[in-house]
Amino acid sequence: MKILSKVNFVTPVQTQIKLVEDRMRAQADERHPDLRAALEHLLSAGGKRVRPTIVLLVGSMLGGDSERLVTLSAAVEMLHTATLVHDDLIDGALLRRGTPTLNARWSPAATVLTGDFVFARAAKLAAETESIPVMQHFAETLAIIVNGELTQMFSSRGIANRENYYQRIYAKTASLFETCAYTAALISNTDDETCELMRQFGYDIGMAFQIVDDILDFTSNEGTIGKPVGSDLLNGLITLPALYYIESHPDDPDVGELAEGGYADPQRVARLVDAVRASDSIRQARGEASRFVDKALAALAAFPAGNEREALIELAHYITDREL
Amino acid sequence: MKILSKVNFVTPVQTQIKLVEDRMRAQADERHPDLRAALEHLLSAGGKRVRPTIVLLVGSMLGGDSERLVTLSAAVEMLHTATLVHDDLIDGALLRRGTPTLNARWSPAATVLTGDFVFARAAKLAAETESIPVMQHFAETLAIIVNGELTQMFSSRGIANRENYYQRIYAKTASLFETCAYTAALISNTDDETCELMRQFGYDIGMAFQIVDDILDFTSNEGTIGKPVGSDLLNGLITLPALYYIESHPDDPDVGELAEGGYADPQRVARLVDAVRASDSIRQARGEASRFVDKALAALAAFPAGNEREALIELAHYITDREL
Repeated sequence: MKILSKVNFVTPVQTQIKLVEDRMRAQADERHPDLRAALEHLLSAGGKRVRPTIVLLVGSMLGGDSERLVTLSAAVEMLHTATLVHDDLIDGALLRRGTPTLNARWSPAATVLTGDFVFARAAKLAAETESIPVMQHFAETLAIIVNGELTQMFSSRGIANRENYYQRIYAKTASLFETCAYTAALISNTDDETCELMRQFGYDIGMAFQIVDDILDFTSNEGTIGKPVGSDLLNGLITLPALYYIESHPDDPDVGELAEGGYADPQRVARLVDAVRASDSIRQARGEASRFVDKALAALAAFPAGNEREALIELAHYITDREL
Repeated sequence: MKILSKVNFVTPVQTQIKLVEDRMRAQADERHPDLRAALEHLLSAGGKRVRPTIVLLVGSMLGGDSERLVTLSAAVEMLHTATLVHDDLIDGALLRRGTPTLNARWSPAATVLTGDFVFARAAKLAAETESIPVMQHFAETLAIIVNGELTQMFSSRGIANRENYYQRIYAKTASLFETCAYTAALISNTDDETCELMRQFGYDIGMAFQIVDDILDFTSNEGTIGKPVGSDLLNGLITLPALYYIESHPDDPDVGELAEGGYADPQRVARLVDAVRASDSIRQARGEASRFVDKALAALAAFPAGNEREALIELAHYITDREL
């Protein structure tokens, strides 16, 4: 595996990322002090700002206006943050990236409303790009994300289904990555074909990103990912590594029990996690993530070499190589 | 008091209101069946569609395009619906307008997400008006509503404060009424002065609307408003009738106890409700609502007579006269 520095891809947009964070922080100015404190808490929890980085790199590569790109970046990261606030509330998660979640410290009511406020600010920032199609894509992406979560909530647990898996990770992750790259191209006044290539790029790295997250749920240790190994399986969610394992081991009795509620049995799940890790399934899932990254790289090949394109190539590699 | 037919003001826009409801229903097409059912349930609970009526009447009066006005109306009503879904969840309300709330039937998680989906659809519809300022006002209005709810949540209960009261009812109700009338004028390509008059009209009838709601909390019987009489006081919320009473009866021991948590004592609150009803405070609060309506009517005086203007005048009167 190629060894990569983990932050290199940020270099061309480091200054702008700082502006994006300032812009996000300013969204609760003149509001209730507790709301300002909540937003500060959410933003200080950080994360790698992968989504703003995509917006800024794609937009800069295409010669987009820096100030509008900063606005768009703040909008996508606020949208992402809002969905995390409601997700953590729904899951009852008390930690995210090692920092207490909002609902660990606030009432459910205040957490619902803070998420709503962050949605409102994401919408305001999107409107400030002054692009109708950006607004429309934003609204549609939020609908896709939420519909995906509702579908997951109402779906039977422990059922293995490849089509369902791809739909789920599109809604959960790839749809917003796609929107990042596509809307960055849109506001950079480029042609339709370029916008479409960037949409494809965003989609592919988004799909790869989530597949790798799902692999890490099997291969990491609890300290690294901040949740129990195999937590997806314990929740009855069959992700790609498990799907490969199930396809090649239909006679494993633990597999047969999954659809019957076997996922709720921690010992059974622990056995299955060990079996998946020992099998070829992890390598197969990595291969699938790599195929998405290869498609993303192919979309980039049409563009002339330059700092931003190189950084996007590095970003695509980072997505499959991180923490494996 | 002038006797008015309660539905007259809807007459000029009856056909369009039906289109607005169809448009709202269509927002969950191609989504998860449970989500479709939830949206159907929310919309069938109905309500008087006062906000779409304002959009349609103002826009028609100003010669706006009917199709865009229907889109805008659906957007404002979806935004209103989304805030109600999260409000009912937060308040634990089991009934609204006599119909079970979503959270009475669904889990909190599904209710949070359904509210988010309805927000997403409101944003999509707003974007379909293809007006950047409409989008911006929408996003800002949502931020005002949510910030108002958070401020109320974090405020000390039982404290009487006129300024705080007006801020609260602006955030809760008048801000969206204002946005209805203002954005309807905006997409009707009228001049700035007209937009400003319509903004004022929306603000004034919105303020009157909430003051009357707050009066009804004292004067109605439980069967009519579907919640206990004096429920605001029981929740420690001091509304305009109580404010007038407190100002003129500072020595009433029940008043003195309010800030000390006396609102939590049902017997004390029942005594206070009776005292407010028997005092001049209700008439004073009605007078204040009427002053807002008079200002709203003054804003309309600049426009030539016609069906829409007459309907808006009736709507303004209806707001103070309903169910009193």
